Amino acid sequence: MKILLVSFLLLLSPIVFCQDSTFIKSIYDEALARGQAYNDLRELCKNIGPRLSGSAKAEMAIEWSEEKFNSYKFDNVFKQPIIVPHWERGTTESGWVSSKEGNLHKLNLLALGGSISTNGLMKGQLIEFSSLEELKKVNKQKVAGKIVFINQKMDATFIQTFKAYGGCYAIRGEGAVEAAKKGAIAVLIRSLGLPIDEHPHTGSMRYDKETPKIPAAAISTLDAEIVSKWLETETLNASIELNCKEYPDAPSFNVMGELKGKDENSIISIGGHLDSWDTGEGAHDDGAGVIHCMEALRILKELGYKPKHTLRVVFFMNEENGNAGGKAYATWTKEKGENQVAALESDRGGFAPRGFSCDGSEEHIQLISSFSGLFAPYDLHVFEKGYGGVDIGPLKNTYPGIPLFGFVPDSQRYFDFHHAPSDVFENVNERELALGAAGIAAFIYLLDKELP
Amino acid sequence: MKILLVSFLLLLSPIVFCQDSTFIKSIYDEALARGQAYNDLRELCKNIGPRLSGSAKAEMAIEWSEEKFNSYKFDNVFKQPIIVPHWERGTTESGWVSSKEGNLHKLNLLALGGSISTNGLMKGQLIEFSSLEELKKVNKQKVAGKIVFINQKMDATFIQTFKAYGGCYAIRGEGAVEAAKKGAIAVLIRSLGLPIDEHPHTGSMRYDKETPKIPAAAISTLDAEIVSKWLETETLNASIELNCKEYPDAPSFNVMGELKGKDENSIISIGGHLDSWDTGEGAHDDGAGVIHCMEALRILKELGYKPKHTLRVVFFMNEENGNAGGKAYATWTKEKGENQVAALESDRGGFAPRGFSCDGSEEHIQLISSFSGLFAPYDLHVFEKGYGGVDIGPLKNTYPGIPLFGFVPDSQRYFDFHHAPSDVFENVNERELALGAAGIAAFIYLLDKELP
Repeated sequence: MKILLVSFLLLLSPIVFCQDSTFIKSIYDEALARGQAYNDLRELCKNIGPRLSGSAKAEMAIEWSEEKFNSYKFDNVFKQPIIVPHWERGTTESGWVSSKEGNLHKLNLLALGGSISTNGLMKGQLIEFSSLEELKKVNKQKVAGKIVFINQKMDATFIQTFKAYGGCYAIRGEGAVEAAKKGAIAVLIRSLGLPIDEHPHTGSMRYDKETPKIPAAAISTLDAEIVSKWLETETLNASIELNCKEYPDAPSFNVMGELKGKDENSIISIGGHLDSWDTGEGAHDDGAGVIHCMEALRILKELGYKPKHTLRVVFFMNEENGNAGGKAYATWTKEKGENQVAALESDRGGFAPRGFSCDGSEEHIQLISSFSGLFAPYDLHVFEKGYGGVDIGPLKNTYPGIPLFGFVPDSQRYFDFHHAPSDVFENVNERELALGAAGIAAFIYLLDKELP
Repeated sequence: MKILLVSFLLLLSPIVFCQDSTFIKSIYDEALARGQAYNDLRELCKNIGPRLSGSAKAEMAIEWSEEKFNSYKFDNVFKQPIIVPHWERGTTESGWVSSKEGNLHKLNLLALGGSISTNGLMKGQLIEFSSLEELKKVNKQKVAGKIVFINQKMDATFIQTFKAYGGCYAIRGEGAVEAAKKGAIAVLIRSLGLPIDEHPHTGSMRYDKETPKIPAAAISTLDAEIVSKWLETETLNASIELNCKEYPDAPSFNVMGELKGKDENSIISIGGHLDSWDTGEGAHDDGAGVIHCMEALRILKELGYKPKHTLRVVFFMNEENGNAGGKAYATWTKEKGENQVAALESDRGGFAPRGFSCDGSEEHIQLISSFSGLFAPYDLHVFEKGYGGVDIGPLKNTYPGIPLFGFVPDSQRYFDFHHAPSDVFENVNERELALGAAGIAAFIYLLDKELP
C-alpha cells in the first residue's frame, strides 16, 4: 500500500515536486548562508573537548547541549537519566620495543577502552600474528608469557571504508580474550586506521568471564610497519605501562529537544552520540553527528515548519563503550507509550553527503528512493538498504517494523581520524558539515510528510 | 549512429559488462593497494614546490616529469618547446590599513598574477564596493586618487562551488582595469575563497591597452570582513608595497608520454597543468590533476592493457597565466597530422570523485551515461554535459566536434585552497587522490574501447 502511495505521489509530482524542491532549497540556503553547525561544533570541540562516558567533560557536554537546545527555543528540552560505565585512561601510557641488536623504538600507543592496567612496567617478548584467525590456530606454548602483536591491516581495496573496518574490527574487540587464551600477558594491535601514520586509534574491547584479563593497547600503523619489519630478522621485547582503570558505573543522561508535531505522540527521533573517545576532540565521531541533527531541527524551526509528527533530536550518551543511552531510550519511550514512527542516526562523520541508508522494509527503501530526484541537485545519490546506527538500534526490538535510517557521508577520510588524536575540529570542513545538516533536515522533512 | 551503437552494446551487456567490471575492479585494486599517486604528489609538492611558468622550479618540474614518465616506461616520452610569460612576485609584499581613530591592521595579501609593482610604498584612502557592477556605476570623482577595495563575496548557497567562483571571477580579472578607469591608484580585492580565514588567494588579472596599469592584490577574506566593518564608521587609509615584475617571455615545455595504440596516429589526450601559482605547493591545483593522469596511464600499462588508440598523457605548461601550453599543443598536433579522438582534463582538485562532464555532442553524453552502471560501485554518479578544461579547450577549434571531458571531483573544499598558501600536500587525502586516478583510468579504458 505504501508502494501505491508512492506511485500516486509520483503522478501528482509536478506540483508536489515543485513545492518540495522550493522548501528544500530554502533549507540548503539557511544551512550554507546562515548556518550554525560549524560554530556549534567548534564550541563542543574546543570549549569542552573529548567526553567519554562517566567523565566530567561528558557532564559538561550535557549541560552545554541543554543550553543550546534552549537557546534555539526547541519545545520540551529535557534529560533522561541513565547509568553509564566509567573507565579512565589514567596518566601513564608508554611503550617501546627493543632488541639485543640495539634497535629501540618508541611506540605511539593508546590503551583500548576497558583495558586493565599493566600494574607498572610490563616486559615481554613480542610475537606477531597477521590476523585473529592465525592467533586462534597457534599452539599455546609458542605464546605463553609473551606479548601478542596482531598486525592485521585494513583492506584498502574496499571502496566503502566501513567494510574494511568491519573486516578488522574483531582484533580490537576480541584480541585480548584470544591472546589470553593462549597464555599471553598483554596484547598490542595494529590501529584500525587506513593511512600509515603516527596516530594510534583506540576503541572498545571486551573481556569474558572464563579468560584472564590482560592489558590491551593499539599502536600506530607506522609503528606496526616498523615493528613488523624488524621482527623479520630480530627478536624484539616490548615494554609497556598503562595505568587505566575501571570505576563504578556513573549517572549520566541522554539529552533531548523537540519540534512538537500535530500528532504529538508520534515521534521521529534523530540523533547521534554526545560521548566520544578520550583522545582528540570527538569532532567527526560523533560531534558532527549530534551537530548535524541539532542544526537540522534548528533549520526546520527557523523556516517555520510545522511538522505532522513530533521531531525529536536525541543526543545519546555512551555509544562508544556500552550503548547505555540507546538501550535506555528504547525502553523509556516504549514505557511512556510513545509511537516511534522512524529514527535516523548520523554517526559516520561530517563529510560531504552521499545519501541515506535504510534498515527497513522494501517499501521504506522504495520511499526513500522516490526522494532521489529532489536530492540530485545537492549531489546526494545513495538511497539504499543499509545500516541505521548503534544508538537507534535498540528501537528495532521495542518497535518491530520501525524503519531506521543512517546518514551516509563520503567515507574516504573517516578512518584517518576515527578514535585517534587527529579527530579534531580542524579536520572537519565547514561546507561539508553544513551540507550534512541540510541533507538531514530535508530528509526528515520528506519523511515527516510521507510517513503515516 | 553512436546512439544505435550504445543501444546495441547495452543489449550485449551481460558479458561485456562483466568483463569491463572485472577489469575496472583490477584498476581500482592497483590504485588503492599499490598506487604511486600519493608518493608522486609528495615529490612534486615537497621536492619541487610551487612552479609558476618561467620560473626555475617550473623547469625543474619539467625534468622531474620526464624522469617519472621514463621510470614508468611509457612509450615515446618527449617535450614540446613553447614560449611562456614570466612574471615574478618579487621579495616585498606588505600592506596594512589604519585610521585616524587609531585602528591599525596588517593585511594578508598577495599580488595578483601580472600586477605591476607599487614602486615603493603606496598610500591612499580606501573606498569599498560590494561588486564590480557597483564600481562601474560610480562617479569618477569619488574614486580618483584612492585605492579601490572590491569586497564581493562568493555566494555560499551554490552547491557546486565553481559556480560561486564563476560569479566573482571578474573582480580579479577586470578589477584593476575598472578601478583605473575611475582614476584609482590601486585595487585590492576580497580573495576568491569560501571560508573566512587568513589566507589570501592569488590568480591572474588583465590590463588593457587603453587604461593605465595600476597595482592589484587580493586580501584574505578575514581581512576583508575586518576592513569592511571598520569602514562602516571610519575613514581608512591603506598602505601597500608590491615589487612584482614582468620579465621577457621565456622558453618552456609541455611534457608527454604515451601508451602506443594499435592505431598509433589516433590519440586520446589526458592531462592537467604542471605549472602552479607561486604560493603553497600547487597540490590540488593542479598537482593532483597531472598526477591523476600519469597514474592512470601507469595503471593501464601495469595491467598490460593494449589500447586501440594511443593514450597520451600531457603535462601542460602555463594554464595559470596564459594557456600557452594548451594553445601550442592544439596547433602542434594538428600540424603533425594527428587524429585527436578525445581529450580529458583533471583540473578541479584531488578530492573524492563524483564523475565526469562532457563538452561534446548529445551522443557523447549518451555514451558516458551508459558507463554509469559500471561506476556505481565506486560512488561515481555524475555523467553529464559540462566543461572539459582550459588546457584541452583549444583542441575544439583545431578538431571540430572532438569531445572534451572533465574529471569531476567533489568541489566543497576546492576554494579553501585554490591559489592560496594552503594549497599544500597535507591538504590532499591519499585515498581521494587514488580514487581519482582509478576513475580516470577506468573512464579512459571505456572511451578507448567505445570510440571509433
